[in-house]
Order: sequence, then C-alpha cells, then structure tokens
Amino acid sequence: MNARRFIGNDPVDAWPAGNRLEAYGDGLFETMRVHRGNVPWWPSHWARLALGAEKLRLPLPDEAVVHAAAVSLFDDGGDGVLKLLLGRGGTGRGYAPPARSLPLWMLSRHDLPPARGADTDARWCDIRLAMQPAFAGVKHCNRLEQVLARAECDDAGVDEGLMLDIEGHVISAIAGNLFVLVDGRWLTPAVDHCGVAGVCRGHLIHLLQAVETSVSAAQVEGADAVFLSNAVRGILPLVRLGSRAWPPHPAIAAARQLLAGIHPGFAFDAALKTERS
Amino acid sequence: MNARRFIGNDPVDAWPAGNRLEAYGDGLFETMRVHRGNVPWWPSHWARLALGAEKLRLPLPDEAVVHAAAVSLFDDGGDGVLKLLLGRGGTGRGYAPPARSLPLWMLSRHDLPPARGADTDARWCDIRLAMQPAFAGVKHCNRLEQVLARAECDDAGVDEGLMLDIEGHVISAIAGNLFVLVDGRWLTPAVDHCGVAGVCRGHLIHLLQAVETSVSAAQVEGADAVFLSNAVRGILPLVRLGSRAWPPHPAIAAARQLLAGIHPGFAFDAALKTERS
Repeated sequence: MNARRFIGNDPVDAWPAGNRLEAYGDGLFETMRVHRGNVPWWPSHWARLALGAEKLRLPLPDEAVVHAAAVSLFDDGGDGVLKLLLGRGGTGRGYAPPARSLPLWMLSRHDLPPARGADTDARWCDIRLAMQPAFAGVKHCNRLEQVLARAECDDAGVDEGLMLDIEGHVISAIAGNLFVLVDGRWLTPAVDHCGVAGVCRGHLIHLLQAVETSVSAAQVEGADAVFLSNAVRGILPLVRLGSRAWPPHPAIAAARQLLAGIHPGFAFDAALKTERS
Repeated sequence: MNARRFIGNDPVDAWPAGNRLEAYGDGLFETMRVHRGNVPWWPSHWARLALGAEKLRLPLPDEAVVHAAAVSLFDDGGDGVLKLLLGRGGTGRGYAPPARSLPLWMLSRHDLPPARGADTDARWCDIRLAMQPAFAGVKHCNRLEQVLARAECDDAGVDEGLMLDIEGHVISAIAGNLFVLVDGRWLTPAVDHCGVAGVCRGHLIHLLQAVETSVSAAQVEGADAVFLSNAVRGILPLVRLGSRAWPPHPAIAAARQLLAGIHPGFAFDAALKTERS
C-alpha cells in the first residue's frame, strides 16, 4: 500500500494523535477503481462524498487538489484501487466537532482484489443493520457492523454475506449493493434507513431502470437472478445462497455489458479475463 | 494533551496508515478520572473494556503493561483525565478483521473539563440512537450519532442533550447516562438495544439500588429529580430541560455523597470546589 496524508491542501507525514477519525470514526471514505491511471467514476464518487460531507458537516478539501494527488499516485498508468479517507481536524476529548477545521484526508493505492471466479456464494448474516436515517446512504467510517458481518462469513467459509435490517428488510451485501431480478424487473433495496448508496449501484439503477424498493428475504431467494455490485468489482453474480443455487442468467450478462459501456475497467474482455484468472 | 501509542507491548511513534481505527472506528475506548496520580475505577474500566473486546473480538493488551504506562503518564501525582483507545492490527482495504493481530492502543492525558457550575441545562436531541443489540452497552468508536448530537446542542447553545432511540425510548445523555427519580426510586434507562453501560452508571446502580428499565420522555419530564452521570464528572444535576426546571433535590446531594465514598475524585469538598470555581 502506498499512502499519502494531507491536512487542508498540504501533505503531512502524520495526523495528530487523537484525531477524530481514530477516536470516533468521524469521517467518510470512497473506494474507486482505477483504470490505466484514470478514475472513470471520479465525478460520481466526489458527488457522494460531498453529499456525505454535508450530512456530517465535514469540511471538504479542494477537489482539484485531491484529484491531482490521486492521479499522481497512479502516474505509472496502472490499474488498481484508490481509497480516499476524509475526516475533520480537532483533537482532544469530547464529541463536539470544531466549528471550523481543516479537512484531514488520505489517499492510498491498492492492488485490485484477487479474482473471485464465477462461483460467489453467500449467507444471511446474523448481525443486522441498525436503522439510522440521519446518515443512511452515506459511506461513513462507522463500520463495526460490517466488520462483525465479515468475521461471521469468514468463520462460515462463505464469500459474501447478505444483510437484513433490524426489521428484517434486505438491505445489501457487506461491501456491496444487491440487485434481484423479479418478474423481469431489477429491484434493489432502498437505502433510506440504513445501507450505503453505492456509486456502482447508482449507475446500475440508471442503466437497468431498476426500482429502489423494500426487498424481502423471500424475494431474494425466489428471484430469477441475483448479483452484488460495487465500484471496485462491478457486478458479481450470486451463484449460491444457502441451499438456493442460480445458474448463469442472460440478464446478468446483459447488465455487465451495459456497465462495461460506461467504465472501461469493467469492459467485457476484462470481466472474462478476471473470471478465468 | 500528552499521548503515547503502542502496538502489542511496545511503544511506537505512530500506527500504520490505514489502520482500522481510522478506517472503520474498529475499536473501543475508556475515559477515566485520575485522582492524585491514581485511577480509582481502573478495575471497572478494564472490565468493561474486556467485555467490549470480547464482543468485537478485539485482542486485549496486557493489563499490567497498560496500567503501568497509564500511571507513568501521571507520575507527577496530578489530577486529570486518562483516555485509553484500543484497536486491532491489520491495514489495507476490506472489513475482514485479521484472525490474529497485535492490539493498537493509545493513552492520553487531558485536563479535567472546565467546571460546569450547578446550572446544567439540556434539550431533547433531534437525532435518535439506532438500535443495535450486537454491541449495545459497549463503549466502541462508532460515535457519529454523538458527534451530530453534540453539534445540535452547540447550535442551540444548550449544555447537554438527552437522546431517544428510534422507537422513542429515552436512553442517555450524549456523553453520560441518565438517572431519574420517580415515586421515590431512581430509574436509569436499560442499554441493551443501544447506549453505553457507563462505569459511573454501574457504580450508581449499585449505590442507589437503581432500576434499569425502559424510561419515557414523559417520565423524565415528570421526574422529581434528574441527573447525568459519567466517570469524569460524576453526577451532574439537571436544572432545566426545555421549559421544565428542577430545584436542588436532597436525593441528588445524597447520591453525590455516596459516590464520593467510593471515588475520592468526587469527594464532597472537591465537588463543592468544582461548582464554585
């Protein structure tokens, strides 16, 4: 991992001890797929970051400065993953956010995740997502639920976990959104009470004319096809969920082609190569 | 602030970039009152930390090493606040906690907070606490709700905020628990769906034979006396909540004397001095 930290517009070696990211998870992040040194979905990621910053009252750094620093991390023209972490200044004890502070931000470069193959299985997680409309949809840094959900799946030896909210609605995968094909239409769970409004999800809703709605566990298990989405992996078809299995479905292949049309990292050849490797 | 960081048993200058505390709030903390270089409630704080670590599957450092480092931060025999922050090792992307890792921990020394005087007012916070039984009671580092609640109170120019859960039960103050005197008995909200099981709260439940139960907003507003508690300030009588005002109540004075009996930092003389200063 190659990481660079900043405060305001200035690179720094370290953030202060007791900063609010490490104290309270008081921040936001974006995880972006980089293709040949570029971040094709940068505008969507930045827009989501800005919306989250408004909800959390976080100061935003200068987009041009962040973008220039991001591109310079990939000046070899490589592929990979770019993570942006954003917090606010101020240290010491106490939850009160400072009225004015410079943003703390970090960029890090990571390899693309290992290819998963075309055999992603999943389970229903035991831990539920709490309902918090005040920052539903936001990709914030309070992620203990996801940490415990991921630990559950690792214990069970299962690739992915699907998460319900406290009331039993299906919300998402642990680190991705969910699309289910029901009666010929793509549905995706609403994320207005919990969950993250994924950038890839946003593009797919548009491309597939998918419906954001309440989704039940029975609808997922009865669906004709199911896939997970995120901005790093694109579309991951679900092959097994407990005892339910799905064969390849042409609607997923079609969705992948549409996605490849708007992000070269998900181009069809690349997707095939990923699945074979 | 004087802060020292450690990994395992070893002091370090910094934690790795992208550590899980700053990435996900994947950790716990304790905030302790120090009296003349000692931490009278150390065993209670450590017990709560250990319980939280079990729930989050966090590795615990060696208690003797942490205690020695804590005491050395106050080797001038001073009073103050000691904060312990605990996370786990592992960096990079992905929620999966490493199967084995060394604990990351930090100790910091802070001044006692400014005296509040005997005129603490409060409001009902707009933001609600989400219900998450998987780590209710635990003093974890996912604290965005408290950050936003505190910002609300600062906007409103009010000292403290009382928080309801999503279903409308009263849970706590922003950084403290709540005790209400109803029909001659002290009640305190249960924290089995959200909220923090405060160390001071634990001692007070015992001292006052208080009942942990569901508490409504109407019960708080109709109570004969109300106070907030935390391990740094002890007992803070509530004087106003919106249009409701409470005169001093002998049951609160009695509770303060009981508390002073088990923590010299809250000794009655000290409390009087704090209120006068």
